Amino acid sequence: MPKRIRLDKAIVTENDRLAADLADRYDRAGVLVVNLMSSPGAGKTTLLEATARRLAGAFRMAAIEGDLATDRDTRRIIDAGMPCRQINTGGGCHLNAVQVREALDAYDLRDLDILFIENVGNLVCPAAFDLGEHRRVVVSSTPEGDDKPIKYPVAFRLADCVVLNKTDLAGATDFSADAFRGYVRDIKADLPVLEVSCKTGDGLAGWFQWVKEAREALGPPAPDAE
Amino acid sequence: MPKRIRLDKAIVTENDRLAADLADRYDRAGVLVVNLMSSPGAGKTTLLEATARRLAGAFRMAAIEGDLATDRDTRRIIDAGMPCRQINTGGGCHLNAVQVREALDAYDLRDLDILFIENVGNLVCPAAFDLGEHRRVVVSSTPEGDDKPIKYPVAFRLADCVVLNKTDLAGATDFSADAFRGYVRDIKADLPVLEVSCKTGDGLAGWFQWVKEAREALGPPAPDAE
Repeated sequence: MPKRIRLDKAIVTENDRLAADLADRYDRAGVLVVNLMSSPGAGKTTLLEATARRLAGAFRMAAIEGDLATDRDTRRIIDAGMPCRQINTGGGCHLNAVQVREALDAYDLRDLDILFIENVGNLVCPAAFDLGEHRRVVVSSTPEGDDKPIKYPVAFRLADCVVLNKTDLAGATDFSADAFRGYVRDIKADLPVLEVSCKTGDGLAGWFQWVKEAREALGPPAPDAE
Repeated sequence: MPKRIRLDKAIVTENDRLAADLADRYDRAGVLVVNLMSSPGAGKTTLLEATARRLAGAFRMAAIEGDLATDRDTRRIIDAGMPCRQINTGGGCHLNAVQVREALDAYDLRDLDILFIENVGNLVCPAAFDLGEHRRVVVSSTPEGDDKPIKYPVAFRLADCVVLNKTDLAGATDFSADAFRGYVRDIKADLPVLEVSCKTGDGLAGWFQWVKEAREALGPPAPDAE
């Protein structure tokens, strides 16, 4: 259906224009924005819960949460101590820049150091929609299998970091971390892979360090901050 | 973006027209067509491998396999003894009726009892695109968490059967089968849930029985079979 392709490109182009406005707004406010993507159930929310608890003293953080339905994940993140605003997409398969712009009304960005955007659980569509973020993170999990990077290459190619979650389950599955890392290199040679278990806490120090370095790389807000 | 919604509706309507043609073609040939959907890595391919091995003597079966990239899953299914035709969608997030129609060139449908279509790993978009199938199956897996039915309600609402895979990992996660079944009932009261472990073989007899009954319910091909 070539017609479909043309239409989608027009939509993405409009989204890109709005995303550029968002990116400018983030930079003027001096807030680091991180867009998290994954398959359903890979552990994005659990990672944010751990981040809320561990980095609360270091940074002023908030989140925007995308789901087709329910506010379950927003309640979990708020319970972990991080302000969070829910976007319900209805049937929508990804967040777009319009939705994020509306959700930003919940916050004064100048009061934040880091804003996390948890995208809809989907390893395909969110990759095509820029939300103006500084960093993209793909969360993958061992029960999904070690071949996901080559089977869903777009999301991995556009990522700045891969968090490989549920390493505590690797032994109970046929997951090979070496194979996974090899496939990631095939897609994007310099893409870092952080192995973690949000359940046991193993490896989370590496993730917290990555967040700190991303925040430091952003530097202070522009002098004419909004 | 209301514009987006209108465009998508037009595309779905065109797809529905083609899917109706496919459905008619399946019925004339007397082949049962089963469309399998799930998150990435839930176990659709592993379920088809087990089905290929167990039901080879009972039915003439074949598969169509949808992936963004690679022919890994097709090779796995062929190795298990079932003919399989790969569709690579590029960046596409679901199979559509045009793609399936083209892939059908690989088969004489009159020579088949059952055709399985393994959709792209995505718990959102495939649900919106009818492929003319007789039955829709959602494969869910315990590591994804027990709340997936209410967080991805559209796929579950349109399903005829849920296969809950990786029950061998339920104890190592915080998965509650009772909660999962309750959420499924909230979405669609009479939707059957078949608990299986493709790894250990537990529960697969229930799935094979469901396939047999679906095949029996279809009956023989129409007298003027194509």
